[in-house]
Amino acid sequence: MSSEIDSKMTQNPQQLLKTLFTAAVDSAQPKLCVPMNLPDAPRGRTVVVGCGKAAAAMAVAVEDHWIANHGLDRLSGVVVTRYGQSLPTRVIKVMESFHPVPDHASVAAAEAILAAVKGLTADDLVIMLASGGGSALMALPADGLSLDDKQRINRELLKSGATIHDMNIVRKHLSRIKGGWLAAAAAPARLVSLLMSDVPGDDPSIIASGPTVADPSTCAMALAILDRHGIAIPPAVRQRLESGAAETPKRVAGELRMIVTPQKALTAAAERLAGTGFKPLILGSSIEGEAREVAIMHAGIARQVIQFGQPIAGPAVLLSGGETTVTVRGKGRGGRNCEFLLALAIALDGQAGVYAMAGDTDGIDGTEDNAGAIITPDTLARAAAMGLNPKDYLANNDGYSFFAALGDLVVTGPTQTNVNDFRAILITN
Amino acid sequence: MSSEIDSKMTQNPQQLLKTLFTAAVDSAQPKLCVPMNLPDAPRGRTVVVGCGKAAAAMAVAVEDHWIANHGLDRLSGVVVTRYGQSLPTRVIKVMESFHPVPDHASVAAAEAILAAVKGLTADDLVIMLASGGGSALMALPADGLSLDDKQRINRELLKSGATIHDMNIVRKHLSRIKGGWLAAAAAPARLVSLLMSDVPGDDPSIIASGPTVADPSTCAMALAILDRHGIAIPPAVRQRLESGAAETPKRVAGELRMIVTPQKALTAAAERLAGTGFKPLILGSSIEGEAREVAIMHAGIARQVIQFGQPIAGPAVLLSGGETTVTVRGKGRGGRNCEFLLALAIALDGQAGVYAMAGDTDGIDGTEDNAGAIITPDTLARAAAMGLNPKDYLANNDGYSFFAALGDLVVTGPTQTNVNDFRAILITN
Repeated sequence: MSSEIDSKMTQNPQQLLKTLFTAAVDSAQPKLCVPMNLPDAPRGRTVVVGCGKAAAAMAVAVEDHWIANHGLDRLSGVVVTRYGQSLPTRVIKVMESFHPVPDHASVAAAEAILAAVKGLTADDLVIMLASGGGSALMALPADGLSLDDKQRINRELLKSGATIHDMNIVRKHLSRIKGGWLAAAAAPARLVSLLMSDVPGDDPSIIASGPTVADPSTCAMALAILDRHGIAIPPAVRQRLESGAAETPKRVAGELRMIVTPQKALTAAAERLAGTGFKPLILGSSIEGEAREVAIMHAGIARQVIQFGQPIAGPAVLLSGGETTVTVRGKGRGGRNCEFLLALAIALDGQAGVYAMAGDTDGIDGTEDNAGAIITPDTLARAAAMGLNPKDYLANNDGYSFFAALGDLVVTGPTQTNVNDFRAILITN
Repeated sequence: MSSEIDSKMTQNPQQLLKTLFTAAVDSAQPKLCVPMNLPDAPRGRTVVVGCGKAAAAMAVAVEDHWIANHGLDRLSGVVVTRYGQSLPTRVIKVMESFHPVPDHASVAAAEAILAAVKGLTADDLVIMLASGGGSALMALPADGLSLDDKQRINRELLKSGATIHDMNIVRKHLSRIKGGWLAAAAAPARLVSLLMSDVPGDDPSIIASGPTVADPSTCAMALAILDRHGIAIPPAVRQRLESGAAETPKRVAGELRMIVTPQKALTAAAERLAGTGFKPLILGSSIEGEAREVAIMHAGIARQVIQFGQPIAGPAVLLSGGETTVTVRGKGRGGRNCEFLLALAIALDGQAGVYAMAGDTDGIDGTEDNAGAIITPDTLARAAAMGLNPKDYLANNDGYSFFAALGDLVVTGPTQTNVNDFRAILITN
């Protein structure tokens, strides 16, 4: 992809959309964001720990900075990323575990991370690298709780209709590393956490369930949530919660640096439009909802731009981020961004002058090989010419196959970062 | 409701939201919009015909204007509205029929309307009054087609997944009054149509299926659509379609005046904010999608306003219109606006500083006695204090009962107009 805006590109909406996606992803690259947010080397040792889909890339960024500035001799550590997302490192060990359900490797990773920060002094520095997915990748059941128990409780919580907020309260109180426990273990070393947010509101206590963030919630709250939803826990765990012995740290030392957020990535895309004649409008960086319905509402806003110049006059690009959901009813292929785009194309019904791209900034939309796809005003016409019925593909949750047939997939490979979904709707008039 | 903006009201978000709704509804009242759009009296007679939910109120507005300006002696006509929505008139007959499925009264109304415009001269004037719902309220099956046939074809079309566009093409070719036929029947009289739009894009050929609008679609197109979806039609009807004998008028005389649109109503609400300190932002006047998902996206945009001052900085009011849908799975009470608000309250999760109102501008949300309802930042807390679980109510499609219990319904009674849904989200900071 070109990284230069020129007049040729602004006449090629598809290319411009890809450039915006690249701008968003590049702005969230660990190699860009980690170095500028790193603390100075301490008098003593530096231990790097971390978890999340970007953990390996973040660790590499720390090593590269240390090589250039301090040398590697007093740097060590361990981070955990998703299976298959390791990168070669020099002194920081990279472990792998499973996402989205924690496995025994997740437990091994948590134990290794806790061990790495034990026994440090006030002269030492712990750098915690947290990114999306960290909660599952690093798991350590509380005393008296088996991994099986924890997985079962998680499943029952998901089915119970409990809010994410409530689920996090329970998770923190059933863990020996989340909800501030990692910070407690790292004391008295200086602690600096570099956080990459992929969650609405960028609440640091939610990213990887806040291993280095003080937790205001209590044992009593966790018990009440479990009991309200009729979720069983082992007697020993109940006793520890009732006695308050499992209370999470209410104050922890350490500094939190939010180095990457969905909003920053959208802002980078918006800034990329300077000089193109297209005005950006960010609708929201934490948009949720069923992908195909979110698409219909985006189509409604795009029509409003064309008909009435609201909420912004064209030429313009509507930007949004967040995490949509797909309720799978069919047997097709593709993630939420292809589903969004297919529904958007149907809702726009060939509307002249509207192009769109949607993609997952981690480079993988769902479980396929594409980051996302692109639609054009003639998407439906081209599909019809090929005998493809877009409604059938949507009913079968088969957006990937639809856009693959059209040749409109956007493939980037894993990006080693994640600021969730990226959507851009370009309106030429 | 007060019709004055004062400082007291701007400190009362609920009152301000109700005032905005009133402003939108009032701006679309026939008594306001009809007179200013009426033509002068002709040399000859004036015949008023019309169909739709606002037909009676529009007829009254014509009569009032004629009384004041021309007298009633050369005014006559017939309009059809929904059962129970008649109003007393002097010389224009008001009939009633069923919505949304045409019944035999719909046929009787169509016949009366066609008869009323027959035999006029070029000195006469026909005023056609069309508003939402008109298509079902006035129905006249094409030669060879029974009402039962037409109802069956309509049902099969709805199930077939055909687009609205395609369904309208079929409907126009199976009718003796839609798709321009009424205009053809009124010639050589002068024809002026006053249209109240409740459809996305305000296409006059869609409002009441365009009885006075030239129809570019053809018999061949209608047949192709029927055949593609495997929908049977009587042989005589097929023969007329194949021969082109049922071709709709491609050119009709007459003037179309779009007197009321969802966009104009939202604009009236936006203008009502002048001097309140709240800035309006119209997201779209034709927003569609599943109500609870549209709510989640609205919540995401509201959060963006609070967190990042985008797409507009607060204090602000986000306005939108259109027609959401509710996929009914439960057994509760309430229309799409209560469903939207209940889902919005859940998605906002007690977010400080956000209030919202949603309502159907016709005064009836679904089939209950309320136009809509209001949510406040403490909606969920008040519900919890009463032992109400909002998620249970949403799962049961029971928004009406939820807001009735909270005392937060907005009740206006039928408004005699219709510009579809009205939604306003007020953000105080």
